[in-house]
Amino acid sequence: MALVVQKYGGSSVESAERIKKVAERIVRTRKEGHDVVVVVSAMGDTTDELTDLAEQISPKPPAREMDMLLTAGERISNALVAMAIHSLGAEARSFTGSQAGMLTTSRHGDARITEVNPYRLREALDEGYIVLVAGFQGMSADSKDITTLGRGGSDTTAVALAAALNADVCEIYSDVDGVYSADPRIVPRASLLETVTYEEMLELAASGAKVLHLRAVEYARRYGVPLRVRSSYNDKPGTLVSGSIEEIPLENPIITGVAHDRSEGKITVTGVPDTPGMAAKIFRTVADAEINIDMVLQNISNVSDKKTDITFSLPRTDGDTAVAALERAKGEIGFSELIYDNDIGKVSLVGAGMRNHPGVTATFCEALSNAGINIETMNTSEIRISVICRSDQLDDAVQALHEAFGLGAEDDAVVAAGTGR
Amino acid sequence: MALVVQKYGGSSVESAERIKKVAERIVRTRKEGHDVVVVVSAMGDTTDELTDLAEQISPKPPAREMDMLLTAGERISNALVAMAIHSLGAEARSFTGSQAGMLTTSRHGDARITEVNPYRLREALDEGYIVLVAGFQGMSADSKDITTLGRGGSDTTAVALAAALNADVCEIYSDVDGVYSADPRIVPRASLLETVTYEEMLELAASGAKVLHLRAVEYARRYGVPLRVRSSYNDKPGTLVSGSIEEIPLENPIITGVAHDRSEGKITVTGVPDTPGMAAKIFRTVADAEINIDMVLQNISNVSDKKTDITFSLPRTDGDTAVAALERAKGEIGFSELIYDNDIGKVSLVGAGMRNHPGVTATFCEALSNAGINIETMNTSEIRISVICRSDQLDDAVQALHEAFGLGAEDDAVVAAGTGR
Repeated sequence: MALVVQKYGGSSVESAERIKKVAERIVRTRKEGHDVVVVVSAMGDTTDELTDLAEQISPKPPAREMDMLLTAGERISNALVAMAIHSLGAEARSFTGSQAGMLTTSRHGDARITEVNPYRLREALDEGYIVLVAGFQGMSADSKDITTLGRGGSDTTAVALAAALNADVCEIYSDVDGVYSADPRIVPRASLLETVTYEEMLELAASGAKVLHLRAVEYARRYGVPLRVRSSYNDKPGTLVSGSIEEIPLENPIITGVAHDRSEGKITVTGVPDTPGMAAKIFRTVADAEINIDMVLQNISNVSDKKTDITFSLPRTDGDTAVAALERAKGEIGFSELIYDNDIGKVSLVGAGMRNHPGVTATFCEALSNAGINIETMNTSEIRISVICRSDQLDDAVQALHEAFGLGAEDDAVVAAGTGR
Repeated sequence: MALVVQKYGGSSVESAERIKKVAERIVRTRKEGHDVVVVVSAMGDTTDELTDLAEQISPKPPAREMDMLLTAGERISNALVAMAIHSLGAEARSFTGSQAGMLTTSRHGDARITEVNPYRLREALDEGYIVLVAGFQGMSADSKDITTLGRGGSDTTAVALAAALNADVCEIYSDVDGVYSADPRIVPRASLLETVTYEEMLELAASGAKVLHLRAVEYARRYGVPLRVRSSYNDKPGTLVSGSIEEIPLENPIITGVAHDRSEGKITVTGVPDTPGMAAKIFRTVADAEINIDMVLQNISNVSDKKTDITFSLPRTDGDTAVAALERAKGEIGFSELIYDNDIGKVSLVGAGMRNHPGVTATFCEALSNAGINIETMNTSEIRISVICRSDQLDDAVQALHEAFGLGAEDDAVVAAGTGR
């Protein structure tokens, strides 16, 4: 008998029909003799609908009230799943984030979990109940106000509960079968990965793979919670995320997968005086606008006029804000021009084995070159290589790398979705 | 500077447009220098929609989970009103029932308030905020689970908060202008009442007037909370409910109004052995099925066979359940037949002055008789006379009584709704 935490995403509970299906799976797990804790996202479009309502009322609603509003979505799905379980003859109890002891910081809309006190959940488990917890939400430890955890909040709720309850596994259910070697919509022969280490999953998630949220993976790694990514539409085992790259055998495949990201843009600041502290001023300006930058390239300085160009990538949605902030600081920084470019894509190759295998970078560059793709910016970690190319060449780049590193399966992937979703 | 509690019903917050209107009124009250606590019902049809969803999933959803589900509705409207207030430049904070310190019994779906600890509301008021509280909901003092207060729950929330905060007035906003001397849809010349005592309001509410819920009026009377019933669509002062019939001057009008109720049916049990305890057995059987009965008539016993008939009225929705329960107990009780009649109506005349004015009952009966209406069952209190008649004669009965007691205004009532709603 194990303790299993299961998390179901919005598409898994989008209708009464789907909720009944999910309930069947939960009850089956319970009947197999396991203790079950379930975290549910809001039904399908509920969060979008509530956000629309808020926008009709106020152009910039206060974050505290947005949290009060949006958390209603998970309460609703939570209660409905409990009812569906009940109608199958099993017993369930639903809890809100605060009832589940999910304490957070006070930053509304993007709170961090500071402590989990799941004593009410433990009591309910001991009494034989299936336990349901509304995802994405908690209570500020200081103000006792309702908070939300931001993007990927429900995944993080599930992992945090799994850690606090010392669960044997945390299963993340969605409409994809698991983690693929590339997005099957771009690479039909992408293979489903049986296992991935935390580090590789972090790199994949940070490079655009949407099957798991970065933050949830970080949390799982820190507390050693094994994650299983699988589909709520079938019984396939999915992908197990666990273990460290330090532990995997050397004969394992060198490369795990290819991820891509089409959500970034890049800004080039030209004619920046090549004196110490100028790059810092630019990045401080962008950071003060609360924008995270991704890749950075500083060109070799032009010797004649002691000026340089600095290029960095950032989420497209933050492009206008960053440009405006830099324009305001133009006098202080003293650059000549800002060039904003939305038509870029990022492709990344991830694999724990690349640490010990020289030549991966060379193969990487050759593959792209053979496919006629120009590399604009490159960035690497110990187990990842990422480059920026033109957006319309991104699919070609993913296919070329997948082929060059022999990541394909025998057959086409069955579903039309994967790492890139 | 006063402390004002305002309660807005579902139709007052049914859309983003209406929510903005309500917010304007709230902010105006605050700008007049008053502390304001607002209780909001769920938007328009939200509760019905959530109930439908639950029914799609489970024929008999557990009451605890229904409460988790339905309370989301008030959270949503609550947060939206806070946003609308914010966009007008004022500051508001919304609270759930449990955050507002609304402690209740554990009876899910129909919990009673046991204690109100509004310390968070007081803090927020002291800091200058407009305070919003989700109506209809609380937290079980024993289990810490979320509860709902049943029908009229939001009115009761408002009155309970007004009592706990020692508010100067509790304003109940809906889409009617106040309490009328009769339903203006039946009596166009019905007059809007400026003031009504608690006792009269209790009798009117119990007799079918839907403008205020019986339970909220009872709570207001017990704690001496002045209620003002008014429309959220205009600035008319509405009707003040306060004071006792013991205090009103003798020269006040004898009769306050006519109420009617079309929601009851009646059951006649024939051939009941006329021995002590038989009526008790019948009413115990009905009570055990959790059905409240209203009026009772026991016919004079037939001397020859020592049998009698017992007639009582009850909510139509409980008719089938009551008949089934009595049929099961037929052997024990020993009656001959059950006659169930849905085509009845109840008309009631309410007025504090009738205690001191003999002849009201005579005028009452004459008026109905002149209108050709047969009285089937009669029931009285110190300040009320009620009779059951045929359902299709109910409008005539209301009009005849309103006319006979001179309750009409000079002009037609402006709105097409009133006490009978």
